[in-house]
Amino acid sequence: MVTKNQKKLIRGLKLKKNRKTHGLFVAEGLKVINEFLEASLQLKHLFVLNEFCHLYPSVNQDLINIISESDLKQLTFLTTPQKAFAVFKIPNSKIPNPNSGLQLALDDVNDPGNLGTIIRLCDWFGIEQLICSQNTVDCFNPKVVQATMGSLTRVNILYTKLEDYLKQSSLPILGTFMEGENIYKTTTPKKGILIMGNEANGISPEIKKLTTQKISIPRFGITQKTESLNVATATAIILSELKSATLR
Amino acid sequence: MVTKNQKKLIRGLKLKKNRKTHGLFVAEGLKVINEFLEASLQLKHLFVLNEFCHLYPSVNQDLINIISESDLKQLTFLTTPQKAFAVFKIPNSKIPNPNSGLQLALDDVNDPGNLGTIIRLCDWFGIEQLICSQNTVDCFNPKVVQATMGSLTRVNILYTKLEDYLKQSSLPILGTFMEGENIYKTTTPKKGILIMGNEANGISPEIKKLTTQKISIPRFGITQKTESLNVATATAIILSELKSATLR
Repeated sequence: MVTKNQKKLIRGLKLKKNRKTHGLFVAEGLKVINEFLEASLQLKHLFVLNEFCHLYPSVNQDLINIISESDLKQLTFLTTPQKAFAVFKIPNSKIPNPNSGLQLALDDVNDPGNLGTIIRLCDWFGIEQLICSQNTVDCFNPKVVQATMGSLTRVNILYTKLEDYLKQSSLPILGTFMEGENIYKTTTPKKGILIMGNEANGISPEIKKLTTQKISIPRFGITQKTESLNVATATAIILSELKSATLR
Repeated sequence: MVTKNQKKLIRGLKLKKNRKTHGLFVAEGLKVINEFLEASLQLKHLFVLNEFCHLYPSVNQDLINIISESDLKQLTFLTTPQKAFAVFKIPNSKIPNPNSGLQLALDDVNDPGNLGTIIRLCDWFGIEQLICSQNTVDCFNPKVVQATMGSLTRVNILYTKLEDYLKQSSLPILGTFMEGENIYKTTTPKKGILIMGNEANGISPEIKKLTTQKISIPRFGITQKTESLNVATATAIILSELKSATLR
């Protein structure tokens, strides 16, 4: 049973300002919810169809609410409702060391699907620190949470003033620019911070000034008309190059 | 002005069976429409806001209809209507040579966003032939058309019985499998057909039998929990490796 107040709270969590006020976010589906439970995130409410509630023996039973299909349909942020719907506390980010390892930084990435894909890529390529500018889409946006498929629990994400963060680092700072060096031919560092820019505008001028190496993915197609690559696809290609360089 | 019959026709074009019956598809937005006009696709109807109709001096004026914002809002397949809406004739695919160059083949890719990204990647990496199994999502699906940003005009896409097509080829046939060779360490051919599989099930057993080289993208993350990469992201990484191998 979902109370009126719970419905109101949950609907509100679609918006970043309400997620911030309450410190809560929503996860949907047995698999995604499990990933957060396993990562020991603090559960606030679990709404689950009767036939699946036996899946949660180790969850504090006071937090479990049996829900009807029609209520789930009302609550869901997805096109197709899942079998369970949960509200978790937003965990605190660890403050990363700006001089450690290979990090990824996003300069105002806007699209939730792109951020979700990028978080999965960080998880795949072992990038533990993802630094997001304050205008980057919120990683607890419901679309991002669903797109990351649990990777969100394995990547430390910090929202901060990107310029200040980069100024604290003595690592090489790589940015992708049309005029950059061919990523397949240049030598890239093992440690550094890779910056990926906004979908429409790329890397902002203030951040560009702080880059120490400009790289680019060359176009192989014969025409010059090809649009630039999508930011998530470009991130995939560059992380693949940076990480595989350590193997070659 | 949009007639009732035109509205009915256009609404129908959301479905593959109607696109097939009429041989027509929809493109939205000045930029996307322009790409199809420049590629000399046959225009059937162009609906455009009054203030933008001067942009089409070389289009047969009988095909241009001034449309109101409210009619555009009714017609659009997108969340935000664009300034123009066009109906084009679906062009004939050229029959590709199964023994030429580097080709990409899709074994039942379902998601329109993924197919759109993959078509853009083909354009970027100069892959001229994209072979799709008959259950792969239709490339004239409105979501695919919009996601390709014009790349659809520069890649030849053939829907066919994939098994038969591959049997005609004497090229190496590469497939991605968990147990495949590390893509960063193995030698890959310059000419060949790369197969990418369905989002949930990967490459089907009948197609697997026809592969001559099994490859994989190794996971760098420390945990074994990371989900497999999304098919579009994996395609980006593998095409990048195959094409850059020719440069190293």
